Amino acid sequence: MLTTGFTGSPLDRADQLRNDSAALEALRSGSEARFAAFVDLRPLVDELGEPRWLTNSEVPAELYAIFLGLHDGNAYFAVSVPPDEHAMELRTAAARMSPGNLAILAQARSLLSWHANHQHCAKCGAHTQPAKGGYQRICESEACRAEHFPRTDPVVIMLVTDGDRCLLGRQPKFPPGYYSTLAGFVEAGESIEEAVAREVFEEAGVSVSRVSYIASQPWPFPSSLMIGCFAEAATTEIQIDATELEDAKWFTKGEARAALAGAGPFKCSPRFAISYTLLKTWAEL
Amino acid sequence: MLTTGFTGSPLDRADQLRNDSAALEALRSGSEARFAAFVDLRPLVDELGEPRWLTNSEVPAELYAIFLGLHDGNAYFAVSVPPDEHAMELRTAAARMSPGNLAILAQARSLLSWHANHQHCAKCGAHTQPAKGGYQRICESEACRAEHFPRTDPVVIMLVTDGDRCLLGRQPKFPPGYYSTLAGFVEAGESIEEAVAREVFEEAGVSVSRVSYIASQPWPFPSSLMIGCFAEAATTEIQIDATELEDAKWFTKGEARAALAGAGPFKCSPRFAISYTLLKTWAEL
Repeated sequence: MLTTGFTGSPLDRADQLRNDSAALEALRSGSEARFAAFVDLRPLVDELGEPRWLTNSEVPAELYAIFLGLHDGNAYFAVSVPPDEHAMELRTAAARMSPGNLAILAQARSLLSWHANHQHCAKCGAHTQPAKGGYQRICESEACRAEHFPRTDPVVIMLVTDGDRCLLGRQPKFPPGYYSTLAGFVEAGESIEEAVAREVFEEAGVSVSRVSYIASQPWPFPSSLMIGCFAEAATTEIQIDATELEDAKWFTKGEARAALAGAGPFKCSPRFAISYTLLKTWAEL
Repeated sequence: MLTTGFTGSPLDRADQLRNDSAALEALRSGSEARFAAFVDLRPLVDELGEPRWLTNSEVPAELYAIFLGLHDGNAYFAVSVPPDEHAMELRTAAARMSPGNLAILAQARSLLSWHANHQHCAKCGAHTQPAKGGYQRICESEACRAEHFPRTDPVVIMLVTDGDRCLLGRQPKFPPGYYSTLAGFVEAGESIEEAVAREVFEEAGVSVSRVSYIASQPWPFPSSLMIGCFAEAATTEIQIDATELEDAKWFTKGEARAALAGAGPFKCSPRFAISYTLLKTWAEL
């Protein structure tokens, strides 16, 4: 199995505890509690580039803490804290942090983002309150009481291949020189394979035949599940959708290998992105 | 590639039209418009079991219509209509309807359900208005203007195998005799493979080793993406989570084949469910 970025969390999510608020409160107020702290979704990071875990004495008791899981005698939580000089963008921290810690912060960041953007009930507009260790929000309105659950958006991300060539595109927002695999949200009423075909045709005008699942990764910006595939091109003429991409090109396997080694005709996504995993897997086939 | 239920829509989703409200309005008010009509998320069905498509003259102009796509000279939309004797549960209609029409109704039902439950902004509580042909809702509050997009929940669904045996479970809500593959929502901060391992261990106490992706399907109750996998058992003793399952058992391949033929020790999910596809694929290996 391929290893992708943001995976490999050591935590036991211990979901049975989410329904046991007394047990969660005891864990949260104990000396073995470890808090992943975020300032506006940016984690606190220490001088080694690892999470700067806070302990119970450093986290005000009134702050809502999301329960992440258990590991090695510690109980892990996520909290939002006031501005702090140790806060760093997770994308920046990701290049250096150990995989297990990075996976914990991915879980934490996605959940904190969801809570920040779901203070109200989408059904009736009333305020919502967190429940089940942070894995639910409940509408405060007696007449509604709707239950809401964290959202994860499935995204297909695919390396389209034509024999020895692969198709990569660049969005206007990319830094200069970068090219990446095409990607897009899975929509209602389609399978993974159908979403791959639709997105590739929409963005690059290329039809694909066989789609093969390769690997997946969670992507905490804010909360996607990246579903990585290879797709064989059935047509090769490119016609880009200029609202999505500013360019798309076929690159040879030799060019991809050179790029992965840092000396190619384009720059690759960082190692923690599944786009990198897909390109590397194909280039080494 | 395996064919799963609710896939195979003939529609071109023509997403570029979603930004062109004048073009959408012209399509909606034209004689080539075809409306999938639902009463409380139950589609109108004709005597042959196919969708009872409404035309423009049958749909009040003030009703918001979600744009589904184009096919064969027609433009397809989804609308909610008042009570009508032709309404039928989609699960019931699914057993008989042709695959292409069923896929269109799956897309329609998921989107209608999302609109019904997102009349308010989860960020600020104000009312929201539909936009982009129904693929967005925008907060009416000038101070907020948050954009919301249809939600699709990724779910892992897996046939756990131990050589010639497979693990199936039953939820208390199942009709008598039915057993199905285990399944659960993918959470923030985990890959597909990690979600499979976590869910199988949570629900049945069984550890799995190798996880292989097999197929996927959209599931419009209300809007999931079912990600179907095989998972090899690393342990075989079953310990069920009684809050999720009332039973879980190992069945032999012979028993599975008999059940698929309608004469086994358990009853299978319907053919349009990916649980059936997974079991049949494995039983025929």
